[in-house]
This record gives sequence, C-alpha cells and structure tokens, in this order.
Amino acid sequence: MTATGTVVPGRVGVVGLGLIGGSFARALHRGGTEVLAWNRTRSIYELARVETVDGELEGDAVGTCELIVLTTYPAHSVAWLEEHARLVSPDAVVIDACGVKRGPCGRCLAVAREHGFAFVGAHPMAGTQYSGFAHARADLFEGAPLVLCPPPGDPVENLALLDRVAGLLAPCGFGSVTVATPEEHDGEIAHTSQLAHVVSSAYVKSPRAASRKGFSAGSWRDLTRVASLNAPMWSELFLANADNLVDEIDLIVGHLTEYRDAIAAGDREALEALLEEGNRAKEEADR
Amino acid sequence: MTATGTVVPGRVGVVGLGLIGGSFARALHRGGTEVLAWNRTRSIYELARVETVDGELEGDAVGTCELIVLTTYPAHSVAWLEEHARLVSPDAVVIDACGVKRGPCGRCLAVAREHGFAFVGAHPMAGTQYSGFAHARADLFEGAPLVLCPPPGDPVENLALLDRVAGLLAPCGFGSVTVATPEEHDGEIAHTSQLAHVVSSAYVKSPRAASRKGFSAGSWRDLTRVASLNAPMWSELFLANADNLVDEIDLIVGHLTEYRDAIAAGDREALEALLEEGNRAKEEADR
Repeated sequence: MTATGTVVPGRVGVVGLGLIGGSFARALHRGGTEVLAWNRTRSIYELARVETVDGELEGDAVGTCELIVLTTYPAHSVAWLEEHARLVSPDAVVIDACGVKRGPCGRCLAVAREHGFAFVGAHPMAGTQYSGFAHARADLFEGAPLVLCPPPGDPVENLALLDRVAGLLAPCGFGSVTVATPEEHDGEIAHTSQLAHVVSSAYVKSPRAASRKGFSAGSWRDLTRVASLNAPMWSELFLANADNLVDEIDLIVGHLTEYRDAIAAGDREALEALLEEGNRAKEEADR
Repeated sequence: MTATGTVVPGRVGVVGLGLIGGSFARALHRGGTEVLAWNRTRSIYELARVETVDGELEGDAVGTCELIVLTTYPAHSVAWLEEHARLVSPDAVVIDACGVKRGPCGRCLAVAREHGFAFVGAHPMAGTQYSGFAHARADLFEGAPLVLCPPPGDPVENLALLDRVAGLLAPCGFGSVTVATPEEHDGEIAHTSQLAHVVSSAYVKSPRAASRKGFSAGSWRDLTRVASLNAPMWSELFLANADNLVDEIDLIVGHLTEYRDAIAAGDREALEALLEEGNRAKEEADR
C-alpha cells in the first residue's frame, strides 16, 4: 500500500491524545474540523472517540489527512513519522508539537523530504502543570503564542506553507505566530520555559516548604507552580536541549551568588544595585 | 503632655500611607472605623484625607487611638514608636506590619513595656509588585494570611490580646491568623517571600529575557512577576534577615547545581529522580 495523494481537505490527524494532542483534537473538533487520532493507550482513544475524535489514524486513513500533528514525546514523534511516512500523502503537511526543535525538526524534515510531503516544526506555547487527556481543553491554545520553524529554503514558498498551517490551525485561536529557526527556538525556550521548571522544582526542596502554611501568599505559589511536572517528559526535553539549559542554570546560579554575597557581607549599596538591575531587566523584557 | 489613657474605642492610627498602610486605612475606613494617619509626604496624606482618613495622627491625637499600626520600613517604624511612645495610651495596642519580625518586635516590645502599652508583631501576607498609596486597596487583605507574634509571656493573657487585635482588624477580612515566634516567622518568610524576590530578580538577568516575546507563556510570567520591586525596602528586609536568607539561597543553589550536573552528564535516571523529588516536595507543601 502506498499513499494515494488524495487527502480530504481540512481533515487532521492527531498523534497522541495527552494534554496537548487532546487539546488540539478538542479545539479542532469544536471548530468543525474532522479529526482522526492515534493514542498508545486504547481506552483513552475510545474515550475521545465518544465526542471529540471522528476515527482512527491508521493504515490508509493516514493518507487522507491534509494535516498531521505529532504530539507525543520527541523520540516517539520522530519514530511514528518514520514508521508511517510511506502512508502520508504528498499533498499533506506534518507538524510536530515538541518542546525542543533542533533534534525533531532535523529528523522529521529529512523523512518528509524523502517521502515528498511538507514538514514544519511547531511549538504551541501553552500548557498547564497537569498532563493527560482528562485535562485537555478546547480553549488551551486561545491567545497563546505559536512558534513555527519552517524548513530552510525559499522564503516565499515557506510563507505559503506557514500560511497553510496557520489556516488549518485557525480553530485553535493562537494569539500570535512567531517564525524562528530551531536554534533560536531552543535558546529562548531554555530560558522561558525549561529553566522555570528547574527553578520551581529546586525551590520547593527547602525543608521550610513543608511548614509554609500561614506564611505564604502569591509569590511562593507563583515560584513553585510548575514544580509539579511530568518527570519522564521533561527529562527528555531537558537532555535534548542540554547545552542551552546548562548555560541558563549557570547564569542564574551566578546571579544568585551575587545577591548571596552582598547579603552575607551586609553590603546594602551593592544589594540595592543588584535589585535595581533586576528592575531594569524586567522592564526591558516586558517592553 | 503625657498620654491620658482615654482612647476612643475602635479608633485606629496608621503610620505610613504606602501600599500596606494605605490598604489598612482603606479597609478600616470602608468598615466604618475612624482612621487617623501620618505620612512623611504631606501631599499623600492630603489625598488620603479626602475620602479615607479622618484626621491627623499627631500630638494628643496619638493618645486617642485604641490601635496603632506601624506600616513604614522597619527602621522607621521603630523610630516612630520610640519618638511617640510617651503619647500612646496605656489602653492602646500597637502593631507593626514589617516583613521581618526579630528586630522590630524586640525593639518595639521593649518600648511598649517601658511605657505600659501592649505591642504585638504583625505581618499581613499580602502585597503586589506595586507600591505606594495609589495602589492601596480596601480588599488587599481579603482572604490573606495574617501572622501575629505576641510577646513572650502568659499564654492566656496573650490570647485575649490577640483576640482584641483580630477584632480591631476584622474589617480587613484576613483569611487566617497564624501565631508564631519572631524566629519562626523570619525563618519561614526567608523561604516563602524573600527568596522568591531574589530568584525572580536573578531570573530576568539572562540576556535571553529581552528577546523572549513570542517564546514565553505562563511559566516565565510567574517566575519573574516579583522581579519588579522596591529595591531600598527589600534591601532593608533582606539584610534584617540575612542569616535565614543566605541559608535559603545556598539551599536552592545547591539543588540547582544537582540538576545542572545531571543534565550536563546526560544522566536521565538521575535527572528524573531529581524531578520526582521535586514533585513529592511540592505535593507535601500543598497538602
């Protein structure tokens, strides 16, 4: 069996029905899109089949999708695509939703070129501290930033491709689309998301965390919100972006040590200067 | 002139009309309490006088207050009390609102004993990243935890005193009252609040923060919210709690280094174990 090239316009295939895949399925279904899906755990697929998913993403059905969204962990997303590439229509576009882009984009793009379909790296900047289909929501992506990493090549051709992806994802209601190289994406994400999870996880390990009731308000809650995380998934993402993330951890440890030394020395002038620098950096980042 | 001891029942004096003092004044005024106030910047006092404050906290008027709330920086709160102690009625109770308790409680309690009025250390666990009377709100304390540090001594006598303070502050709508020693308070607060401000301030100093637009969502926003802060005030608070805060910074730097080393070594098993430990610590702290 080979791909026929006859896609059903607008039909979307979703690989993985976790928080992200489930939210794609729910948002697209709500918007009137026909959604096929694959999920490792059969009972979750069957649950989704009741009101969100129109059919199974398997065999010939793969070739009928105009858009395929890979939402499982990076290594699995690549493996699924390698295994199913011969079924994907040359008229289709495949995107992933991995939290790192260098590795998955490079490998998926190679597979796509070999089989003649289009591939665009994608990272929807949305999520919660919860995972799984039970927490998936049709409005998870509403207003959220979407990062797209097009293949290197003709910018005009890429624009048409990005436009097509954005159009197919319109029911998700993303708030912005940012185009970046995988390298730019992975550098920024190490700071904006991965470091946040590492710092939160480290923050709650103080013995004082367990006795914080009655002594804590908004700051503690915000600093520790993402300490609750899916450890296997984040481990995979951290190791796939180790260079950038180690760089970010070294930076924040260096800065923390400056505050520490000023406080230990009772140096009020130095401490105020460090805090004022933080004010300026925050203001610049929010501009 | 000496204090007459004739307080006007329920009348409250507020020292300082910043975010915290202004919010006390607004909340108490909204609840029907008569509020006198002092503020260093005269124009702010006059602004507050229009609809929140009933008169000036000065001279004989000091002796008419049943409750006096010190809301300026720690060093100034102590200085104000030392200067006005002879005017305070022996029937009055004075509380502070400082973010550290060991220093201010010790000194204010000594002054109170010398002059025969009651003193209770207080820390309303509320605030925003903004400061000043313009941001003060009548509902700032609604549902927030209030920490009270009674003087060492007869627990039964203290209970009556704490009950009296809680009653006078009832219009503020605090969500809980936690009784602690100044030492317990300062240890916990170093973790729940002071460390959060240090970490946020350090977090935004990565060069990648300035180019984060389009690549960041809720985690970055939460981790950096309190990076915008009043540098002179927080410097005073950090230095007044240097031992505990240095301890907390050392702890988080130690933990961050463990993640860093596991990531740099590509040790997935160690990394997952560190993240799972964070999950357990978060769960325990939220129990």
